[in-house]
Amino acid sequence: MADGSALRVVELAGGVGGAKLAHGLQAHLGNGLTVVVNTGDDLERHGLLVCPDHDTIMYTLAGIDNRDWGWGIAGETFASAEMLARYGEETWFRLGDRDLATHIVRTRRLRAGERLTTVAAHLQGALGIAAQILPMADEPVRTQVRTDEGWLDFQTYFVGRQQAPEVRELRYDGLAAARATPEVIDALAKADAIVVAPSNPFLSVAPILGVPGLRPAIDAVRSRGVPIAAISGIIGGRALKGPADRILASLGHEATALGVARIYAPWVDLFVLDAADEALAPAIRALGPDVLVTDTIMGDDAARARVAATVLEAVAARRR
Amino acid sequence: MADGSALRVVELAGGVGGAKLAHGLQAHLGNGLTVVVNTGDDLERHGLLVCPDHDTIMYTLAGIDNRDWGWGIAGETFASAEMLARYGEETWFRLGDRDLATHIVRTRRLRAGERLTTVAAHLQGALGIAAQILPMADEPVRTQVRTDEGWLDFQTYFVGRQQAPEVRELRYDGLAAARATPEVIDALAKADAIVVAPSNPFLSVAPILGVPGLRPAIDAVRSRGVPIAAISGIIGGRALKGPADRILASLGHEATALGVARIYAPWVDLFVLDAADEALAPAIRALGPDVLVTDTIMGDDAARARVAATVLEAVAARRR
Repeated sequence: MADGSALRVVELAGGVGGAKLAHGLQAHLGNGLTVVVNTGDDLERHGLLVCPDHDTIMYTLAGIDNRDWGWGIAGETFASAEMLARYGEETWFRLGDRDLATHIVRTRRLRAGERLTTVAAHLQGALGIAAQILPMADEPVRTQVRTDEGWLDFQTYFVGRQQAPEVRELRYDGLAAARATPEVIDALAKADAIVVAPSNPFLSVAPILGVPGLRPAIDAVRSRGVPIAAISGIIGGRALKGPADRILASLGHEATALGVARIYAPWVDLFVLDAADEALAPAIRALGPDVLVTDTIMGDDAARARVAATVLEAVAARRR
Repeated sequence: MADGSALRVVELAGGVGGAKLAHGLQAHLGNGLTVVVNTGDDLERHGLLVCPDHDTIMYTLAGIDNRDWGWGIAGETFASAEMLARYGEETWFRLGDRDLATHIVRTRRLRAGERLTTVAAHLQGALGIAAQILPMADEPVRTQVRTDEGWLDFQTYFVGRQQAPEVRELRYDGLAAARATPEVIDALAKADAIVVAPSNPFLSVAPILGVPGLRPAIDAVRSRGVPIAAISGIIGGRALKGPADRILASLGHEATALGVARIYAPWVDLFVLDAADEALAPAIRALGPDVLVTDTIMGDDAARARVAATVLEAVAARRR
C-alpha cells in the first residue's frame, strides 16, 4: 500500500458490509479512519434507542462482534430478553444482555441532553476503538418502507418481516429536519479520500447523502480533487447480505453492479467491482468512473485488510 | 388457622423481612393479601427506575427470588452489568440481566405516562402473583440519611457504603408532595386486618405511614375495630438483617423489641414477639398492645407459612 497509513479516509457506511470494510480500513489507517454511518435504521425498543448500523460497526471495530451471527456481540446471552418477553414486551428485535448495556447508556446520556454524536464517541472510546464512527446526524431519521401492506418502519420490514414484502417506495422520516454535524463536516473537509462501503444504496447510503448539508460538503471536497471510491455490494447480480438486489429491482434499477454504478456514477471517481463481475467493467467505465476489479468478498480479517489495502492504494494513486 | 383464608389483610412492608412474611401470608390468603410497600428506597440507575423493596417482594411472591443472596432473581447473571461497567457506568448497585428487564419495562411504561401503581400491577401480573403489591405512593419519595459525612441518599448509604456510617437523622424527600393512592385507600378500607412486617421502623415503615392520607385511612379502619398487628424485626437486641438495631440506637431508641414496641404502641393492637424476647412481654403489654410470643424467624417456606398462620389466627380471633 502506497503510504495509506497517512491517509485520512471517510467511509460512508450502513451495517454489515460497512463494518467489514471499516475493519479492514482501520487495520491500515487507525484513527485516520472516520466512518459516517446511516442512522435511518435506528429504532426504539423497550424505551431504549438502538442504533443497529452504528453498533454493528462499533462492535466490529472493537473486535467483539459475533461473526457466527453477523450481528451482536460475541458470547452474547439473552437472559434480559427472556424476562422482557415474560413481561409481555415484543422481542422480535432480539437484544442481547451485553448489547442492551449499549442502548441503556446511550438512552441515559441522550436523555441527559447529550448529542448522539457525543454519546457515540463515549461508547466507542470505552471500547477502545481507534477509528471514529460518526452518526450521519444527531436528529432522528427513520427510514420507512412502502410495501403492498402499506408503510412499515424499517426494522419491522427488515427484522420483523424478514425482508419478505416487496419494497415499492422508501421514505426517510426526519431527514429534512436533520443537519450534517460539525464532526461530519470537519471529517469530510480533512479527508484525503471518501469510500462508499458495499452497503445498500437505498437503505444505507441514500439517507446519509440526504442529510441536509452533507452532499454539498462531499461535492466541495471532490471539487478539490479528493477521490471518491464506491464498492459494489452486489456481486453476480446478488446482494452478499440483505435485500439490496430485490430492492434495486423493485425500485426499477438493474440488480447488478452496473445498476449500482449507475446510481453512484455522477459523483464517484472509482468503482470497485468484484472479479466475478469483470464483464461489467466497460459498461461502468462508459458511465464515467474508473473501475478497479478485485476480489471484494471480505470473509476473514485477511480479506478485509486486503480489500481495504487495494482500495487505499487506488485512491492514494489518484491523489498523486 | 381460624378461617384465615377468607381474610383480607394489608401488610405494610419494606424489603426482605416484608417479603418473607408476605410469602407466608400469600400461601394462606392468595389474592386476599395486599402489600403496601415502601418506595423510599427507590433509585435511578443507568436512567432506569429501580424499586428494590417492591421487586424483592415481587420476586419472592413469584417464587423466583434468589435465596442464596437475599436479593435479586434465582439463577441471575450479570453480562449487562459487566458491559455497563466497561462503558464507565457506576455499578456498585448491581443489577442482574433478568432484574434489568424489570427496570427497563417499568421505566418505559412510566415515561409513557402510566402510574407507578399501574406499572407495578402489570409486572406482578406478568409474573403470576396472587397477592397485590401496592407502592405506598405514585409520586417519587427518596429517603435521605444524615451521617457524619453529611446527607447521603438511601442506597448510597445502604449498598454503596454498606451501612457503615452512623445514622444521625432521616429525611423522606418528596413525601409531603405524595398522596395515598386510591388503591391503597381502597385496600385499607376493605381490610379485615393490618399487619406491620418485621421491617425497619424508620427506613421502611415510617415512610409508608408518612404518606399524606395514609395514616388517617389506617386510623379510620382501626376505629371500626379492624385489628393491627406488628412483628418485631429486632430479636435479642439485633436486627435479623440490615442496620435497624444500630439505627434505633443512634436515633435515641432502645435497640430491642421493646424499643420497636414503643414506636408502634400508640396505634397497634397486637405485638408479635420472638420467643427469645419473651421476657420483654410484660413491659410491652404495659404500653398497651397485646403480645403474642412465637418463633418469628422465617428461614424456610414452612416457617414463613407457620408465622403467617399464627399471626392470622391471632388477628382473626380479635375480630370475633
